[in-house]
Parts: sequence; C-alpha cells; structure tokens
Amino acid sequence: MENKKVTIAGAGLVGSLLACYMAKKGHDVKVYERRPDMRKTTIDGGRSINLALSNRGWKALEGVGVADEVRKMAIPMYGRVMHSREGELTNQPYGLNGEAIYSVSRGGLNALLMDEAEKHSNVSIDFDQQCTRVNLETAEASFKSYSTKEITKVEGDLLFGTDGAFSAVRSSMVKTDRFNYSQQYIEHGYKELSIPANADGTHKMEKEALHIWPRGSYMLIALPNPDGSFTCTLFFANEGETSFETVNTLEKARAFFKEHFADALELMTNFDEEWENNPVSSLVIIRCFPWSKNGKVALLGDASHAIVPFYGQGMNSGFEDCTVLEEIMSQHGDDWNTILKEFETQRKPDADAIADLAMRNFVEMRDLTGNADFLLRKKIEAKFSRNNPGKWIPLYSMVTFSDIRYSDALKEGQRQDRIMEEVMAMPDIHQNWEDPKVETKILELLGKY
Amino acid sequence: MENKKVTIAGAGLVGSLLACYMAKKGHDVKVYERRPDMRKTTIDGGRSINLALSNRGWKALEGVGVADEVRKMAIPMYGRVMHSREGELTNQPYGLNGEAIYSVSRGGLNALLMDEAEKHSNVSIDFDQQCTRVNLETAEASFKSYSTKEITKVEGDLLFGTDGAFSAVRSSMVKTDRFNYSQQYIEHGYKELSIPANADGTHKMEKEALHIWPRGSYMLIALPNPDGSFTCTLFFANEGETSFETVNTLEKARAFFKEHFADALELMTNFDEEWENNPVSSLVIIRCFPWSKNGKVALLGDASHAIVPFYGQGMNSGFEDCTVLEEIMSQHGDDWNTILKEFETQRKPDADAIADLAMRNFVEMRDLTGNADFLLRKKIEAKFSRNNPGKWIPLYSMVTFSDIRYSDALKEGQRQDRIMEEVMAMPDIHQNWEDPKVETKILELLGKY
Repeated sequence: MENKKVTIAGAGLVGSLLACYMAKKGHDVKVYERRPDMRKTTIDGGRSINLALSNRGWKALEGVGVADEVRKMAIPMYGRVMHSREGELTNQPYGLNGEAIYSVSRGGLNALLMDEAEKHSNVSIDFDQQCTRVNLETAEASFKSYSTKEITKVEGDLLFGTDGAFSAVRSSMVKTDRFNYSQQYIEHGYKELSIPANADGTHKMEKEALHIWPRGSYMLIALPNPDGSFTCTLFFANEGETSFETVNTLEKARAFFKEHFADALELMTNFDEEWENNPVSSLVIIRCFPWSKNGKVALLGDASHAIVPFYGQGMNSGFEDCTVLEEIMSQHGDDWNTILKEFETQRKPDADAIADLAMRNFVEMRDLTGNADFLLRKKIEAKFSRNNPGKWIPLYSMVTFSDIRYSDALKEGQRQDRIMEEVMAMPDIHQNWEDPKVETKILELLGKY
Repeated sequence: MENKKVTIAGAGLVGSLLACYMAKKGHDVKVYERRPDMRKTTIDGGRSINLALSNRGWKALEGVGVADEVRKMAIPMYGRVMHSREGELTNQPYGLNGEAIYSVSRGGLNALLMDEAEKHSNVSIDFDQQCTRVNLETAEASFKSYSTKEITKVEGDLLFGTDGAFSAVRSSMVKTDRFNYSQQYIEHGYKELSIPANADGTHKMEKEALHIWPRGSYMLIALPNPDGSFTCTLFFANEGETSFETVNTLEKARAFFKEHFADALELMTNFDEEWENNPVSSLVIIRCFPWSKNGKVALLGDASHAIVPFYGQGMNSGFEDCTVLEEIMSQHGDDWNTILKEFETQRKPDADAIADLAMRNFVEMRDLTGNADFLLRKKIEAKFSRNNPGKWIPLYSMVTFSDIRYSDALKEGQRQDRIMEEVMAMPDIHQNWEDPKVETKILELLGKY
C-alpha cells in the first residue's frame, strides 16, 4: 500500500484519533489545529467539558491501543438517577447486564489522544493554525498562524476535515455545485454549572450515575468528574415563557432553581458566579452530503454530522467514523476514490439516524424519564429481553452497548415502538405487566411486524 | 418619515424592483451589482432566459407603475398544451375565467426595471461590483470592482441582500449564532434548448400556451418568445438510469429525443449545437431564518427563499416580498427593527409554503398532466367552482391568480386534496362525474373538513 501525505485540519477528539489511525497505516500525517495546545494552556470554562464514552467509542480507541489508558480516567455510570422536584430519587439502569457509559473529561481525553498521535514519528501537530483556504482538486490547504500571521501552504495527497461543526474545510465544499447542506439550531441552549466535591474529595451525590432532573420542556443533568465534582448542564429554551430570555437575572435564576431543582441548588456552592459568567451556548444539527471531493478531501465527525448531545453519541459517532473508514481502507488499498465514496455512502444513513435518535432522546430524557408509562415500558422490555435472548435488544442498548449500525438500530427501534404501543394498550397493563400473556403478546407481535 | 441611506446588493429582478420601491419612499438608494450592465453587453445563453409572470408579480409591478410597460413585452399563456409521445395535443386552461400567465424575457424585464430605478434621482446602480464583506451591526458593505480591483466601503442605514440564491450578504449571516440555513439540490438538473421562429417570424406551435411534454420522471417544457421562438427546457435527472449521466453524447441525445419528444425535435433546428454547448444547470432550494439582523440588514427574494421553478413563482414570490415589505413599512414608519422583524415573521411561512408547492407541482407537471384521473379531477373542480362561486378556488388559481397568502393556499389545497380523494373514489366516477350527486358530495365534504 502506498504511503500517502495526509493533512488533517483539526486536532480535536476525532482529528487526533484519526491521526493515530493514519499513522498506524504508515502514512505521513500533518495535523493543524486552530486553537493553542490545550496541554500547555488552561481550557475554556463553561463549555461542554465532559462526555459519555460508550461501546463505539471504546472500540475505536481499542483500534489504536489506547482504551486501557483512557479507562483510567473514566468514571462508569451504570444508570440514570432521576431527581423529582421534591428531591426523590429513582434509579434506572442503562443496560440489562450491568453495562455502563463512562464519564470522561473532554480536555483530558483530547490531550491523551494528541500525546498518542505524537508518539508516532510520522505525525506532527501544529497549533494556532487557522485553515484559510482549501483546494478541493489538489487537497492543498493553507493555514495562517495566529501568532506570526504567516501562511503555510500544505501540499498533500489527502486532506481530512475534522474541524468540527463550523468546519473550514466544509465551507469550501458548501460552495460547490450540488452540495447539500443544512445547519439547524434547536430551540434549546445550555449553560454549564457545577457541584463541587466534598472537602475530602468525595462526590456529593451517587458517583457512578448520570443524574437527571427531568422537567418536561427543560432539564438539568450532572456527570461525575474524577476530582469529586459534577459538571451540570441546564438545557433550557432560548426564548419563550420559561427560558434564558425570561430567567435573565441571577435573582430569577436562584428562584427558578429553588422551585425546580432545589436539591441541586443546595449543592451548587458556586452557583452565583457560574450563572453570571458561564455563557449560554447553542445546539446545532449539521447535515451535509457528499462528505468527500475528488477522492482527496473528506470530512469526519462533527464537520459532516454534528448532532445534539442527548444520546451521548456525538464523540462516539465521530470515533466510529474512524473505525468504519479504517475497515474500508483495508478493503480498497490505494483506491482512495473508492474508499471515500464507499465511506460516505455507507456512513451517511447512520449519521442521519443518530441525528434523529439524539433529538428523540432529548424528549425522552427531559420528559419521559419522569413518566410512569415510560418507566413501565422499559421494565417490560428489560424483562422480555432477559427471558428471550437475541429476540429483543432495547434501542438504548443497540445504540450505546453495541456497534449495530445506527440506521439499523433506528429501524428496529421503530418496530419495537409499534409492538410496545400495542402492549401498553393491553387492559390494566400497570397491574398485569408480569402476566405471561404479555410475553406471549410480544412474541406474537414480533412475528407480525 | 426619515429619509434613509439604503444599500442594495444585487440589481437582479428583485433588487431593481426594490430600488424603485425604496426610491418612491424617498430613501437614497445605492445599488451594487456583481455582473456587468446587461443593457450594454450580451446576455449569457443557456440559462433560464424566460419566466412566467402572474398575479403577484403584476401587483408588485403596478405598485411602482411599470406594469403597463411590462405588458408590452409579455405573451399571455392561457393554458398548458400537453404533447404525448405520439405528438397528440391536449389543452388544459390555467384559469376558470380565461386568466393567463405571461411569458417574459428575464433580460428584458430586468433591463426595464433598472431603467425605471435609474429614473429616480435618488437611485444609482454600480456594476461589476462584488460584495466582499458585510458588517451586520452597522449595515456597512464592501464591494470590490472587477475592473479596477478597488474596494468601496458603503455606509448606510439599511442594507438589503437581493443577491440571489448564492447571496454574499446571506453568507455573512450564515456564520452567526442560531442562524438556520439549508441548501438542498434536487435530483434533476436542466438544459435549455430552443425552437426557432418560422421564416416570417411566427411561432411554430400554438403561441399563447405553455407547452409540456410530461414523461413521468422527466419533462420538456417550452415558453413563447416575442421573436417567434420558443425557449425549451429539459428537466432531467442528473444521475441514474435515464439521466444526463447516461444520455451523455449528442447521438444518444438525438435518439432519446426522437423516441420521447419526436414532435419537438423536428422543430429544434439548432438541437445539435445547443445540446453540445448549453450547460446542465442545477436546481437548488434555499431556506433560512432569520432573514434580517439588527434591524439593519435583510434578505429578499432568492437570497432568503430560492425555490424550484415548477410553479412559475420564483420571481413572483420575490416581487411579492417587495409588496409585503412596502405594506409593513407603511404601518411602522421609521421603526426598522419592527419592520424587518414583522416582515420575516409574516413572510417566512409563505416562503416555505411556495417552496413545498413548487416541488409538488414538479410531480404534477411531469407526471400527472398525462394522467386521466388527474385531468378528470381538474374538470370536476372547475365545474364545481363555476357552479359554486366563492366555495372553491382551485389551488393553481389561488397561487397564480390571487394574492391569497401562499401558506393559506397550501392549507386550503390540502383540504381540497382530502375532499377530492373521496370524490375520486366514488363508483364509476369517470362515467358519472357530471351527475349532481358529485356536487352534493363535495358540498357535504366541504362542511366536514
């Protein structure tokens, strides 16, 4: 296989991982990153600082041998802990077999992946380099140094844009004929807050769980950090009756939290400062196609498919892009035209599916996790699944604990919805859900749909 | 009312008309156009050179007193003439009362509107000026002269982007937070051809009609020009079994036309040259929101809502933007923040509706105009409408011969669909369509839906 000169724009999570994959294949990799080296400077506060790693992410990390290293910095979350307005807690395990998703620090993981990439002698990473121009015919890219203002023209055989939702590489593609593109901001924005650790460094709430305060049209969540703190995120409408627009002073914010998130507010000892200083950030869904041009330039991760964070699959799907690309590379040798075409054709329906699933999970998290029907449905599914191995994998498990294609998971999930709608309509289901008739009904409906 | 400095980027159809509207209000208007002055140079061939003016367009032209002038260059088209594969013709009138849509030359109309704008002492138009930068806070815009390379910074109170589907003004807005945007290319592209005039300058087919060769997944149309020629447009898939990709040589194109458009091919005496030289152009649907920023910068026409051409409403909807804006300006005096907010809020649902209607009409034109059920449905609707004035305006008439809001027309059209679905399911409807029972049924269903 021919050794290629590979340029990667963006040394975020996906770019750094992709550099490792490309280096392992023997290619010469130059990575250019817009921001300063996060390993040498402090990270911006107030923006999405932790993430949930799950099966697809782990698989991609294993592919370059860093999973064990990452595991050391990850905290397993075995389920959701729902907090009611009155402060009552309800547990809901994520998996049927004790599976967990893992809270990791975005900065820590990114730094580890950069270190890993730089271990390869055929990888370099340059920082403070803004991508200013891309030639889609030749894969040449220009980067401008923020410090020296010098422009570097980088020639290469291949150029990958892993430069995120506002990708500069993609912006060159958007101008080309028959390039489909959409950026759609959802109604909700978010603000980060925190629950600091106890004085002894322990966590103030159940550590190995993702905490949710579901409140219908909005919600608060909290993910544990290794230092004993929790990172909390309020997802809240930007405008409207109950929104960032109306809850627009510290006083109103405190009153609002006191009414709806009282148990959390008590633990948020830095609330005032964080509410005042942390920005409200937006949530955008990006879709585009094609993802590649001329067998030379391609997009991966958020650059081609940014999604909302509610399924915890943004990073995982970006990492899985690397696994999928690697598999296709193994099949087609040096035929990069075919590799990139095959990659985008195969992967696009999965990216669309997880985009839809992530929006759907927002409704589930903020609304349904406090709903008796929803919780019963989960119990029935779990029971059936345990008693009938192979016949029923709950949608959440397919997405989170397997590498079943997202598009297949979505289809199977829709089939499960049809079945469970009929099951939930059975007489007195809340009383009779453990009756063997329920299982018989599901088996029958599995044959029908 | 305060006299404002108004900058308009784009002197196309909508920009030139908007300049007239703004000048009439007493504002000082500077228009900058990327292309050379079309009145002094020859127009590019091969790209959409005629258009169908209808009610909304006429109303907007009347608002600045140019309708009569335009009428002199317009050819009425009273209906569709459908051409079967065998060359049989079927007529279908557009209106119930002899209404017509009007074929006009894009270049001729644009030139007339520029002349009209320049009659106002408070309007200037500069050509060969590319918009390179926009300040959304101050409404300042920079234009670079193609000839001198000089950059002009234009200060103003208001900046309007009427610079088309690939708007430079919009591209500044696309980068702002919470700006929703999509560009979606449809599967079909188009190529322009022509049917020249007879030697005596007369038309080779029925002059006062829009000719259609509906063929299911593709179609050919022809619009009359005053010089006796017809401009023909082939709408054809870009890729796939029967497409520009497969019909990719002159020989194949001739064979294809001979098989499917034999009567047209016979009249296309410049076919070979035109097929070889005229480009395949793409069709894009643009949606975005908001359409304005800071009460100072706003988009009109294709810049905010480019649609496919199949309802003949692209120009008409852009012209109607001017009428709607003018009405709102009359209500809110100098409060430009309110004017632009109100404009975008009111107009966006109508832009979305006509975008959907235009795609829907593509299916109707290429597919249904050759369909017996469809033609019968039209006859039943026309009869009912004549017998029950005010109770039923066919969708086509609402869109084309009224200024009912597009969004209301779409809703009413969907209601009509539900009704006609039941009517068409009546026993032996093809035999019994003139039976009074049909009318009774429609009256009954009008009460129900």
